[in-house]
Amino acid sequence: MNEYDIIIIGAGPGGLTAGIYAGRQGTKNLIIDRDMAGGLGREVPQMENYPGFDNISGLELIEKMKSQAIKNCDLKEMEEVTEIIKTDDDYRFAVKTNKDTYHSKTIILATGSSHRHLKVAGEEDFKGKGVSYCATCDGFFFAGRDIVMVGGGNSALQEALYLKNLGANVTVIHRRDEFRAQKHLQNQIKEVGIQTILNATVEEIKGDMMVESVILKDTQTGEVTEHPTNGVFISVGYIPHTELAKQLDVNLDETGHIIIDKKQKTNVEYVYAIGDVCIGLKQWVVACGEGAVAATSAFEDIQN
Amino acid sequence: MNEYDIIIIGAGPGGLTAGIYAGRQGTKNLIIDRDMAGGLGREVPQMENYPGFDNISGLELIEKMKSQAIKNCDLKEMEEVTEIIKTDDDYRFAVKTNKDTYHSKTIILATGSSHRHLKVAGEEDFKGKGVSYCATCDGFFFAGRDIVMVGGGNSALQEALYLKNLGANVTVIHRRDEFRAQKHLQNQIKEVGIQTILNATVEEIKGDMMVESVILKDTQTGEVTEHPTNGVFISVGYIPHTELAKQLDVNLDETGHIIIDKKQKTNVEYVYAIGDVCIGLKQWVVACGEGAVAATSAFEDIQN
Repeated sequence: MNEYDIIIIGAGPGGLTAGIYAGRQGTKNLIIDRDMAGGLGREVPQMENYPGFDNISGLELIEKMKSQAIKNCDLKEMEEVTEIIKTDDDYRFAVKTNKDTYHSKTIILATGSSHRHLKVAGEEDFKGKGVSYCATCDGFFFAGRDIVMVGGGNSALQEALYLKNLGANVTVIHRRDEFRAQKHLQNQIKEVGIQTILNATVEEIKGDMMVESVILKDTQTGEVTEHPTNGVFISVGYIPHTELAKQLDVNLDETGHIIIDKKQKTNVEYVYAIGDVCIGLKQWVVACGEGAVAATSAFEDIQN
Repeated sequence: MNEYDIIIIGAGPGGLTAGIYAGRQGTKNLIIDRDMAGGLGREVPQMENYPGFDNISGLELIEKMKSQAIKNCDLKEMEEVTEIIKTDDDYRFAVKTNKDTYHSKTIILATGSSHRHLKVAGEEDFKGKGVSYCATCDGFFFAGRDIVMVGGGNSALQEALYLKNLGANVTVIHRRDEFRAQKHLQNQIKEVGIQTILNATVEEIKGDMMVESVILKDTQTGEVTEHPTNGVFISVGYIPHTELAKQLDVNLDETGHIIIDKKQKTNVEYVYAIGDVCIGLKQWVVACGEGAVAATSAFEDIQN
């Protein structure tokens, strides 16, 4: 009853696409997510580069993919996989969760990644009191107020634009002398009048009940200054979720991401990986393409 | 004026996605297609496995992607690239078409593939007179009539279902003893009452003004029979379009497809390839994911 051909761990865009494809193969499939389907993707305010949609929110697109996936695929949300054990029987993997145990012939790891923290004084204390990792979730509260966005990549500038658009007074703080983000985004933040402070690191987040300022250090002169602000949004990268991969002896690269081949196979037979937990471009459509490939690879390998 | 950072050859799902991503990088980009944007994709009657759309036609999805791509990307349709010449100047490639010459720092090959033919007597003579490679284009004319579908893969069975749904009396003919297609599709054709003839090859297509029959040969007994039919739909695979790839000395595999790495790079510097012309799963969302990666790789390589 709890026996599956394919178990997909993680219900982000990649995991759901693997589910869509798996469901059309005649295999018995299960997707498990420790959270709601979509994970971090639910927080994306708007996307203009997912092919097929001029402009769509992460939440809306996830709900569309979810409804497609569950047509021919079981889905368990809010259930956390705690352990995967290799067995000798026909169902090679025993997948233990906080609620049950499932058995599967193949495993697709779509466990994603999470926000990297600054690890400075005040960051944990002021979480939800001015410190945020999610502009979509918390931006609304900062209309008409001063905020800083910490980071220099695409996500940082996209979220800065979003916050500016909500009416916040935004300053982007980046530790290097130029942004890593696409030029398109760099031009946009100039056009809308977002201020930038380059060559600066956040050393501390200060306040009383709520955030009141950040302490900045100039990386070139070493000078320390206090910058008053009502909010600190942090977008400085991701940590891949590889706890289960490590249990299965799946190989990781030097950045901690799972190494996969063109068919999304890991070094462990019958274990595949897709999306943000892997090496590669962290983009929805890329994760989706990988999901389609992984489901097909798993199907082929089961037949053999 | 005719100088670009990225020229994408082919405006299918992969090429258009490369255009969407390229357009957001601040680079100057051009997509060229010898036909209308979409190519073979325009013929797909309906898709249920492109993530985000429960059910959409190829034409509709292509038009959506096209409108996204042309926001920040030039597009030339009905213009054929005849030659690509490597040069020694800053714009490394001279791209000659039947109308003009363009210069580019990078090339993304998204040239796709075309329908494989049976190469039997009558096939060319009766094209448009009962012989078709496109159920969407020509199916309408066969409501209430007898047709055969030749092939055993996903496309063959998908198109057989489409034709049945239009009211045709469909028989699928396949040379092997079982279908290669997904079980989901195999079950569906049984459910709707599509007939199948296995272990049979089409030896000849006969008729007068229009197709009247196919000559079949049993691959096991060698017996030859005549099977009356009004139409012959052929879905027996694709031929990758690698003429330009060969001009650039791009490496192909033993099936004639372009060999690429995880960043969609070919063996030739500043030349990338995506979609059906490459090794890999021939699916829209896969081509789209590859398009996003290729545009990003080209951008990174231009900066270096």
